[in-house]
Amino acid sequence: MKPRLLEIRQGVLSHNDHLAARLRARFAAHGVFVVNLVSSPGAGKTTFLQATLQKLLANGRHAAALVGDLETDNDARRLAASGAPVRQITTGGNCHLEADMIETFIDGWDLDALDYLFIENVGNLVCPSSYDLGEALRVVLLSTTEGEDKPLKYPPMFASSDLTIFTKMDIAEAVEFDQNAALAAVQSVHPGIRVLEVSAKKDIGMDAWLDYLSAQRDAYMAAPAEDRA
Amino acid sequence: MKPRLLEIRQGVLSHNDHLAARLRARFAAHGVFVVNLVSSPGAGKTTFLQATLQKLLANGRHAAALVGDLETDNDARRLAASGAPVRQITTGGNCHLEADMIETFIDGWDLDALDYLFIENVGNLVCPSSYDLGEALRVVLLSTTEGEDKPLKYPPMFASSDLTIFTKMDIAEAVEFDQNAALAAVQSVHPGIRVLEVSAKKDIGMDAWLDYLSAQRDAYMAAPAEDRA
Repeated sequence: MKPRLLEIRQGVLSHNDHLAARLRARFAAHGVFVVNLVSSPGAGKTTFLQATLQKLLANGRHAAALVGDLETDNDARRLAASGAPVRQITTGGNCHLEADMIETFIDGWDLDALDYLFIENVGNLVCPSSYDLGEALRVVLLSTTEGEDKPLKYPPMFASSDLTIFTKMDIAEAVEFDQNAALAAVQSVHPGIRVLEVSAKKDIGMDAWLDYLSAQRDAYMAAPAEDRA
Repeated sequence: MKPRLLEIRQGVLSHNDHLAARLRARFAAHGVFVVNLVSSPGAGKTTFLQATLQKLLANGRHAAALVGDLETDNDARRLAASGAPVRQITTGGNCHLEADMIETFIDGWDLDALDYLFIENVGNLVCPSSYDLGEALRVVLLSTTEGEDKPLKYPPMFASSDLTIFTKMDIAEAVEFDQNAALAAVQSVHPGIRVLEVSAKKDIGMDAWLDYLSAQRDAYMAAPAEDRA
């Protein structure tokens, strides 16, 4: 039974990859830079995204967000307070978002009017790593409260991400976060990956993140289409 | 393609349920009380389990542990320091443990010599909820750093558990944990479920947990076989 399951899962994956590639081309054509935020539950994705949206909007940029959860629209309501367009994707029991959900939920949005689209994935350090959503940048958040060895225990997520962000840096000392150990763990799983450190709550490191984001968007939009994958 | 995947997943699930029922009967026949610990990554399962094993062994009880992770044997090495027999189950990419893994990894252990077997599941608030491992007690850990609404966002895990434990209570104040909001969220998803509060690091609430565990074991072993599910 197992081999058959695996075979069909691979079928679902390549269907997803096909949809994701189509989405990626569509987003690029409309100048939308898409960021897929992944992490454990409770790593601070929503607080981080809320602060990011507020800062972008204050700088005159246009950003929207899709947010995935098994249940509730709590996060969409929190994010909508930023003033950005936000839609909640409720997955039922599904442990990750898939490209077809993204395609469905952007329906009716004027992509030409957007500079950025953020996708807050379901809180899960395993399953979302296998599902391309057509993003330009996958960002994995690791909070200072989670334990420094998480990259070693969940390598596919850290290996498939383009950027790692340590969150909740304001309580790093209180929870005895060993930053060097965490950096070593990240680098051993994904050598050379850039790491930023933030506290969205205390506005630490957020400007560096926004500078990074803007530079990445510029480089992405200037790149030849075949380099975007 | 989706309906076919679903059908086969249900096939895998009932195969798992069948194995789990067989394991449950076997554990009961040998007097082993099995606890399945589930939570997000970084909620403190290993620290909690390490302290639990130490206390049980100090009280003359016999306990062993199986611990699941995608990669590394870090947790097994940490837990083995307690002096209890410990085995690591490395799942590769799998986001949860299944009953057949438990059956394989207890091979060679003298079950008659054990009072307790703890299974530390893969850190994931979604997928492990669907997989019965033959446990007598499923315990979901929620750390004070994760956000009080996690039960609402991940209802199957909290609904399928027999006990909720709030961990990292020593830093509850520093992270502004709203205990009443968390209790309300847990109760709305699983009315009547017992909630304990602990800090394994500072030895807060651990004796109450051990008293609870011992009482649950006594009641379970005294119950007629058909009541164990």
